[in-house]
Amino acid sequence: MSILVVGSIAYDTVETPYGKVENAPGGSTLFFSSAASFFSPVNVVGVIGSDFDGSLLSFLKKRGVDFKGLSVESGETFRWGGRYHANMNKRDTLFTFLNVFERFQPRLPTSYKSSEYIFLANIDPELQLDVLSQLKQPRLVVLDTMNFWISGKRQALQEVISKSDIFILNDEEAHELTGENNLMKAIKAILAMGPKALVVKKGEHGAMLIYENQFFFAPAFPLEVVKDPTGAGDTFAGGFVGFLSAAGDLNMENLRQAVIYGSTLASFTVEDFSFNRLIGLTRDEIEERVDRFREITRF
Amino acid sequence: MSILVVGSIAYDTVETPYGKVENAPGGSTLFFSSAASFFSPVNVVGVIGSDFDGSLLSFLKKRGVDFKGLSVESGETFRWGGRYHANMNKRDTLFTFLNVFERFQPRLPTSYKSSEYIFLANIDPELQLDVLSQLKQPRLVVLDTMNFWISGKRQALQEVISKSDIFILNDEEAHELTGENNLMKAIKAILAMGPKALVVKKGEHGAMLIYENQFFFAPAFPLEVVKDPTGAGDTFAGGFVGFLSAAGDLNMENLRQAVIYGSTLASFTVEDFSFNRLIGLTRDEIEERVDRFREITRF
Repeated sequence: MSILVVGSIAYDTVETPYGKVENAPGGSTLFFSSAASFFSPVNVVGVIGSDFDGSLLSFLKKRGVDFKGLSVESGETFRWGGRYHANMNKRDTLFTFLNVFERFQPRLPTSYKSSEYIFLANIDPELQLDVLSQLKQPRLVVLDTMNFWISGKRQALQEVISKSDIFILNDEEAHELTGENNLMKAIKAILAMGPKALVVKKGEHGAMLIYENQFFFAPAFPLEVVKDPTGAGDTFAGGFVGFLSAAGDLNMENLRQAVIYGSTLASFTVEDFSFNRLIGLTRDEIEERVDRFREITRF
Repeated sequence: MSILVVGSIAYDTVETPYGKVENAPGGSTLFFSSAASFFSPVNVVGVIGSDFDGSLLSFLKKRGVDFKGLSVESGETFRWGGRYHANMNKRDTLFTFLNVFERFQPRLPTSYKSSEYIFLANIDPELQLDVLSQLKQPRLVVLDTMNFWISGKRQALQEVISKSDIFILNDEEAHELTGENNLMKAIKAILAMGPKALVVKKGEHGAMLIYENQFFFAPAFPLEVVKDPTGAGDTFAGGFVGFLSAAGDLNMENLRQAVIYGSTLASFTVEDFSFNRLIGLTRDEIEERVDRFREITRF
């Protein structure tokens, strides 16, 4: 089952209480791919500038990630800079240089158009709709977004939500999208927009899944050191969609496990900056942590 | 196995987005007792003024709560007033009239001195130490406190922490007590103060337990309507200590279940103001919700 991801590729400059990296590889498609490729081949649609170093891409290619859909444009790669607060729950954006990403128009190579598992990473919802229009018969569309589009492109966002099967968002976005303070009521309102399932991410407090009136809660894996939360959400999505692509059926049992695999992959990401922990991560380490997730939640 | 609780009895005036109650019964000992009495007989040490209406006490007596340790003093009962914010996570204290509670000196009736399961609800840590000194041979001492004592009576608080088996606190208090932003590091630091186990409450995000290097995470039960969070922490403690008193052995399996019973009892409390939901609550309703907890966390 091949997976398609469409989103950003970036150089991130990130400062946390544990250190700083400058121009480290980042972006939703690469974080997603590094996780999803543990489960299924991944096709990437994105854009980089001529300055982007190829070593991370080479690593991902060996893991079964295809970059036929990657455009290389003259100019610089998208750059983002941020600083995390002491408690790591909040961050300030220090700069955003869209560069070649500003004119990003996702074009799916012919072989990608029959992809079955789709992850629409956080980009302009109009572009997300454009991606959907290029697909033949996707089996599962999973959507991400950010607060910027909730206020700025609400109509297009609601349209792409209505066309998605699973919408992944965080608790703040759920409140902002619906105006509801109570999370349960916000969830009801978002499900009424069309998606079959919701995943609400709550950062250090874990994630919850809602599907056919059933709930599932997963804690975040307890870590003594969180060095850099950047990419956690996208590796969560990578583990989540990756697991579902391998499992096949969309049902509550598979969705529960998908949330745990997503949470597990995200927990590795934050243990170090950029892709430092994800490079070298093994399937055995993942399975071991999934077992520990079971141990910390069973009763 | 009889349980002893020492703490406050109050009239609460509470305003939330769902309404307001004036001079409604409250206080840690009564919320605790209403939950713990589902499992074992409960002995209460506290103080009320001559103005306290006896109907809630009569109800609790029928449930196996003993009030031999209750002093009735001339004057008014402790009164607290608070207003919750729209998201229910924060509240402002509008007034605190200690009244007869100001001179509270816990004196254990002789028959209480051999109590085995002890809950030291949130009062001055010097009084908590005094209670411990009156006990013969407690089997399990469970401690609660609040931020006020962390800053105001730190030395006495550390002493009573060191003499307790299980310390229940919330995540903010854990950070404040240790100066550690990372919760895992804060937990390590608090365990180094002496208790065998910690329960860290995270409000709508659930609770976590740490015992002998093992973790357990429980979500908060998902509710569409949270009318009044007052008393949630004390009914959590009541379900937690109550379950342990009935289960007997202190081990990880029992502690896991105790957290779930605590969370279950708390989830009923917040569905209505004061004791409105707890009066009439049945053991069957509790067991049903415990089953639903299993359903929303298993994978």
